[in-house]
Amino acid sequence: MNFASDNTGPAHPKVIEAVLKANEGYALPYGADPFNELASARVREVFEAPDAAVYFVATGTAANALILATLTEPWQRIFCHEASHIEEDECGAPEFFGSGVKLTLIDGPDAKMDPNALRHSVASVGTKSVHNVQRGPVSITQVTECGAVHSLEEIGALTAVAHEFGLPVHMDGARFANAQVALGCSAADMTWRQGVDAVSFGGTKNGCMAVEAVVFFKPDHAWEFELRRKRSAQLWSKHRYLSAQMDAYLRDDLWLEMARSANAMGQKLADGLSNMSHADIKHTPDANMIFASLPRGAHRRAVNGGASYYMTHEALEGGHEIDPITCRLVTNWATTEEDVDCFLDLLS
Amino acid sequence: MNFASDNTGPAHPKVIEAVLKANEGYALPYGADPFNELASARVREVFEAPDAAVYFVATGTAANALILATLTEPWQRIFCHEASHIEEDECGAPEFFGSGVKLTLIDGPDAKMDPNALRHSVASVGTKSVHNVQRGPVSITQVTECGAVHSLEEIGALTAVAHEFGLPVHMDGARFANAQVALGCSAADMTWRQGVDAVSFGGTKNGCMAVEAVVFFKPDHAWEFELRRKRSAQLWSKHRYLSAQMDAYLRDDLWLEMARSANAMGQKLADGLSNMSHADIKHTPDANMIFASLPRGAHRRAVNGGASYYMTHEALEGGHEIDPITCRLVTNWATTEEDVDCFLDLLS
Amino acid sequence: MNFASDNTGPAHPKVIEAVLKANEGYALPYGADPFNELASARVREVFEAPDAAVYFVATGTAANALILATLTEPWQRIFCHEASHIEEDECGAPEFFGSGVKLTLIDGPDAKMDPNALRHSVASVGTKSVHNVQRGPVSITQVTECGAVHSLEEIGALTAVAHEFGLPVHMDGARFANAQVALGCSAADMTWRQGVDAVSFGGTKNGCMAVEAVVFFKPDHAWEFELRRKRSAQLWSKHRYLSAQMDAYLRDDLWLEMARSANAMGQKLADGLSNMSHADIKHTPDANMIFASLPRGAHRRAVNGGASYYMTHEALEGGHEIDPITCRLVTNWATTEEDVDCFLDLLS
Amino acid sequence: MNFASDNTGPAHPKVIEAVLKANEGYALPYGADPFNELASARVREVFEAPDAAVYFVATGTAANALILATLTEPWQRIFCHEASHIEEDECGAPEFFGSGVKLTLIDGPDAKMDPNALRHSVASVGTKSVHNVQRGPVSITQVTECGAVHSLEEIGALTAVAHEFGLPVHMDGARFANAQVALGCSAADMTWRQGVDAVSFGGTKNGCMAVEAVVFFKPDHAWEFELRRKRSAQLWSKHRYLSAQMDAYLRDDLWLEMARSANAMGQKLADGLSNMSHADIKHTPDANMIFASLPRGAHRRAVNGGASYYMTHEALEGGHEIDPITCRLVTNWATTEEDVDCFLDLLS
Repeated sequence: MNFASDNTGPAHPKVIEAVLKANEGYALPYGADPFNELASARVREVFEAPDAAVYFVATGTAANALILATLTEPWQRIFCHEASHIEEDECGAPEFFGSGVKLTLIDGPDAKMDPNALRHSVASVGTKSVHNVQRGPVSITQVTECGAVHSLEEIGALTAVAHEFGLPVHMDGARFANAQVALGCSAADMTWRQGVDAVSFGGTKNGCMAVEAVVFFKPDHAWEFELRRKRSAQLWSKHRYLSAQMDAYLRDDLWLEMARSANAMGQKLADGLSNMSHADIKHTPDANMIFASLPRGAHRRAVNGGASYYMTHEALEGGHEIDPITCRLVTNWATTEEDVDCFLDLLS
Repeated sequence: MNFASDNTGPAHPKVIEAVLKANEGYALPYGADPFNELASARVREVFEAPDAAVYFVATGTAANALILATLTEPWQRIFCHEASHIEEDECGAPEFFGSGVKLTLIDGPDAKMDPNALRHSVASVGTKSVHNVQRGPVSITQVTECGAVHSLEEIGALTAVAHEFGLPVHMDGARFANAQVALGCSAADMTWRQGVDAVSFGGTKNGCMAVEAVVFFKPDHAWEFELRRKRSAQLWSKHRYLSAQMDAYLRDDLWLEMARSANAMGQKLADGLSNMSHADIKHTPDANMIFASLPRGAHRRAVNGGASYYMTHEALEGGHEIDPITCRLVTNWATTEEDVDCFLDLLS
Repeated sequence: MNFASDNTGPAHPKVIEAVLKANEGYALPYGADPFNELASARVREVFEAPDAAVYFVATGTAANALILATLTEPWQRIFCHEASHIEEDECGAPEFFGSGVKLTLIDGPDAKMDPNALRHSVASVGTKSVHNVQRGPVSITQVTECGAVHSLEEIGALTAVAHEFGLPVHMDGARFANAQVALGCSAADMTWRQGVDAVSFGGTKNGCMAVEAVVFFKPDHAWEFELRRKRSAQLWSKHRYLSAQMDAYLRDDLWLEMARSANAMGQKLADGLSNMSHADIKHTPDANMIFASLPRGAHRRAVNGGASYYMTHEALEGGHEIDPITCRLVTNWATTEEDVDCFLDLLS
Repeated sequence: MNFASDNTGPAHPKVIEAVLKANEGYALPYGADPFNELASARVREVFEAPDAAVYFVATGTAANALILATLTEPWQRIFCHEASHIEEDECGAPEFFGSGVKLTLIDGPDAKMDPNALRHSVASVGTKSVHNVQRGPVSITQVTECGAVHSLEEIGALTAVAHEFGLPVHMDGARFANAQVALGCSAADMTWRQGVDAVSFGGTKNGCMAVEAVVFFKPDHAWEFELRRKRSAQLWSKHRYLSAQMDAYLRDDLWLEMARSANAMGQKLADGLSNMSHADIKHTPDANMIFASLPRGAHRRAVNGGASYYMTHEALEGGHEIDPITCRLVTNWATTEEDVDCFLDLLS
C-alpha cells in the first residue's frame, strides 16, 4: 500500500527487459546507439510530428529546465502556476539553467492557471521598456500538481493567451500519459494541436527507471538544445540505456496501458474515499493523484496498517493539533486492487 | 573488436542483475532508498574514509562539474592539464556549473601537469588584487587523457604545489579503477593520503550503465552539494537504480576485477603493437587506453576486418594525406583475448 | 515643474564643484584615490559604524544587486515587497548578479511588507529539503516605491522576522536621506540598530551625479564584494569622481539639507493636493514622492502648462477612457516653492 | 611625472565643462537626455556608420563584457591574446556577463595575436560536435597591452581568419584614439572597413571622467544589448553626465588632439630612453605606453625624484635581486614635455 509517489514504484518488467537486451554487445555512445533512432521515431509517431526534435534525459527536472532555458532569454520570465513543479520542487533549476530567468506565478483552482489571471499578468509585466524583466514562455503542468487534468479547451485557452502576446508554450508532462488517458485524446490533440511548442514527456513516473523525452515540435532550437544538454551534464555516454527504456515504454502502447491501470486505481481510491463520510476529497482527482482530508484517527490506522503516503506540509509541522489532515495519495502502474481495498478498509 | 571507448562496451551482468533486483517493490525516492546507504558505505570503506560525504550521479561530467563548482568561487580559476576532459570534452560544463569560472591550462607530457609548470602558473596569476581571476582548485585526471597513470609521487608533487598556495585538489577519476589497478595501491593511497580533497569516482566506463560516485573526504560542503545536485537536475527520483549499480560495482571487488581485465587487455594490445615494426606507441600506455600510430594500410585492413576505434582529429580531417595516422584504442572489462589477437592479426 | 523623478533633476553645485576640484592633477585609480578614504570615513561616521566596509558604485541597481548577490547563495531566495525596485525596475539584475536567485514577493499596503505576510511566506518555503529554493535575505525598500517611509518599529518588525529564521537583512536606500529626514532619526537608528546588515545608501537621486554607497556593517564579505564589484564592471578606474561626489554629499550635512528641501516640497505638494476636492492622494506621502489621482481635465491643464510627471501604467495604456488618472509626483532638492505653487495653480 | 597609467591623469577641462553645462535644469533619465542623441550622432559620424547602434557605459570592462556577451553564446569561446585586458584584468567579467563563456588564448609578439596561431587554434577547437566549447568571436585589443598598435593589414589578417570561420570580431578600443592617431587613418578604416563588427570605444583613459561608447555597426543586437546593459546595472539614471562627456570628447576633434599629445609625449619618452645605453625598450612603443627595462639604480633615482609608474609583476615580487627591472610608462593628454624631460634627467 505505497501511495507516496509514482516514483516509489518499480519499473515495468518490459522496461527492465529492454535495458537488459540493450546491454548485449557494443553500441556507439552519446545518442548514436541504434535504440535512440528507434525510440525517437516512436516519440514522433506518438505525437504525429514527423519533424519534431526529440531527445532523452534522465530526470523530469532536466527536461523542464533544458526546454525552458532554450525558450527563454535570461532577461525574460516564465509564466506558471504558483504550485507548479518548476516553482516548487526543482530547487531553482529553471533559474540556474536559464541564467537567471524569473518565474511569474499565476493563481487558479486545482493548480491550473486561470486564463484571465494569466492574461492580466502577461499584460501588466514587461511594459516598462528595459526596466523590467520581459515576457517569456508559458509553462503548463499536465497533470497538475493537484492531480487535476486540463481539458483540451483549458489548454487551448492558456495557449491562446500566450499566442496573443507571441509567447511560446511549454508543457511539463511528467504525468503526460496519465493525463492523456484521462482525456481519451491523442498526444497531438493535447499538445501541438492546442498550440503547445515543446513537451517534457515523462517516462520515469509511469513505469520507467529514469527517462524523459524532450520534444520540440519545430526543430529550430535543436542544435542549441544538444549543446545545452551536454553542457549541463545530461548527455549520457552509454546512452542506449536511456533510449532502450523509452523504446520499450512506447512499444505496443505499454505506456498507455500502465497509465490506464494507474488512473483506474486512482479512480477506485477516489470513489472509495468519496463514499466515506469522514473523508473529504480536495481538488478534482482526474488521474492518479488524490488529495483527501482524513481524520487523524483514520490516518493512524492506515499508517499502522502499513500504508505509506505524504501529508501536506501543514500536517507534518502542526503536530497533533491539526485534525483532519490532508494527504496526497498517488497510484502507479503497479498499484493493485488489493492495495486500494486494503487501504480503504484500514480507513473505514 | 570494439576499441572505440570504454563507454561503448556493455555493463557487467552483475550490475544489470543488481538493477533488476533493486526493481522489486517500492523504495523511497531521491536517495532515501536502502541501496544508497549500502553503496555509500561501500564507497567509504573502499576509501577508508568513514566521514566522507558520498553522492551518486549519472554522468562523469556531472560529477566533475558539481564538485568543481562546490570547490570554486565564480571569480576563481581551476588549474588543469590542457588535454583534460573538463577542458576538452564537457562543452563548458565547469564554467556553467561554476557560474563563470575560468580554466587555466597547464602543459606536461602524457597529459600530466608538470608540477613546475603548475607552480609557475599558480604563482603568476591572481596577483593583481581584484583585477584578475583568483586562484582556485587543481584538478588532476587519473588515468590521463593520454592513457598514462600518475604515480603516487606524481600526484603528491601536484598536491604539494596546491597546498603551497592553500588550494584544494580534485581528482577526475572517470577511470579510477584502471589507475588504481595499474598502481597496485589502495584508493586511499591514491587520493587523500596524497592530499586529494574530492574525487569523481567513475563507474560508467568500467562496467556500469550510468553511475559515478562523488566523494568529499571532508563533508563541509555536503549540504551545498546536495542543493547543487538537485538544482542541476542530477538528483534522481528513482535513485535506487543509481545506488544499486554502485553497490554491485563495489561488491566482492567486481570493480577491480573488471579494471584488471581491461588493463590486461590494454597491456596485451600494447605489447602486440610494440612488437610491430610499423606501429609506434605514443605516450605511456599504463592502463586500458593506447595511442598508437599506424600506417594507413594497416588501419584500412583493421577497419575492413571489423575493428572499431577513433583516430585523432588530424587523421580524420587530413584525409588521405596523413600517413601514418594516430589511433586511440581503449579496452574495457568485456574485451577478450580474441578481440586483441584478431585485431593484431589484421594489422600485421 | 518637473516632477517626473528625482533623477531628472540636476546635481547640486557643491557636488559638481567637488568633482571639479577632484580633477586637479593625478590620482591613483580603482579606489586608491585620497577622496575614497575621506568619503568612506564620512559614511562610517554617518552610520556610527567604525568597522563598516564601504564601497562606491555608480548606480542604485548595482548597489542592490551586488549586496544581494553577496548575501544570497544562488539556490536561495530574497524576500521583498511585490512592488519593490529590485522586483519591478531592474530587469532581473538580482537574478543575474546572484546566478539565478529567486525573488519571493510579499504583499502589504504602501509597498511595505506586512510582517505577518513575511513570516508566513518565510515559514512556508524552503521546507522540502533540497527540493525547493532555500530561504535567503529580506530586502526592505526605504522610502518605499509608493512614497511611504517605514517607521523604526516597522523596520524592526521585519528584521525580527528575518532574525527569527536567521536571515540577513538588506535595505534598498535609494532615497535613504528622504526617509531619514522624514523620521527625524539617525542613520544608525534606521539601520543596524534595527538589525539591518547592509545598505544601498543612495546619492544619485538626492543631488549627486551618479554615486551610491554600499555599506556592510560587518565586513566579513568585504573581499568577496570587491571581487564581485570588479567582475561586474562596476569598479571605476578614475574612481576619484565617484568618491568626490560622496565626500561633498556628506560634508556639512548637504545630503540632509537637500533631502529636507525635497521632502518639504513634497509635503507642500501633498498639502495643496489634499485641499483640492478633485484630487485624491493615494498611499501615505511621507517623503518626496506623492501618488495622486487627478481628473483628466486637470492633468491636461498641468501638462499644457509645462508640468512633467509620470502616470501609472494603466493611465498610459487606457487612453482617454480612464478618468481620473493616477499620477506620480516626485520632488527633489532643486524643486522650488514656485514649481509647486505654479503646478497647483494649473490643477485648480 | 606620473606615468602610472592614463587613468591616473585628470579629465580634460572641456569634458568637465560639458558636464557642468549638462547639469543645468532637468533632463529625462536613462538615455532620453538630449546629449545622448547628440553624442550618439557624433559617434556615428566619426565611424561613418549612420546605422550603427551606439550606447554609453561608464567603464571599459562594461563595454567589453557587454559586447562580448551579446556576440557569444554561453557555450562558445572568445579568441583573444593571452595578454589581453579581457583575460588579464577584468576578474572574469567576460565569463560572468557571458554566463560561462570560455576564453581561448592566442600567442603572438607585442600582445598581437599571430594570425596563423589564431587560425590554428580556431581550426582545432570546437570540432568534437557537442563535446567541446564551440567557436565564437575574435577580440582584438587596439592599442595592445604591450603598447603596440596593429596596422590595418594586421587587423585585416585577423578578421580574415575570423570570417573564414564565420566568426564575429570585437575590438577592445580602450585606447582607440591613441591607435588611430598612431596609424593616421580614420575610425572606419580601423574597424568596419577591416571587418570589425563591434567596438569598445574608449573615452575614460583619454581625458574623460568615465565614459566608453559601445558601437555595433549592424544594429541587429540593439534591443538585446539594451536589456543586458540595464540588467547588469550599467544604465545610468542621470545618463546626461555620460553623454555630455562623450559629446565634448568628440567635439572639434578634442579626442584626437588629446591622443596626439599623449602619443607625442610617448614618442619623446621612447626616444629619450632609446638614447640611453642602460635603458632597453621592450615591444614596439607605437602609441602612449612604453615598456622599458631600467637598472635598479636609475629606477631608484626616478622614484626618489618623484616619478610614478608600475613595474612588472616579477620586479615587484623579486625584491632587490632583479636588476634591471621592467617598467611600464604611460603618457596621457596632460603629460607635459617637462614631465618627460625631468624623468629622463633623473634616469641619466
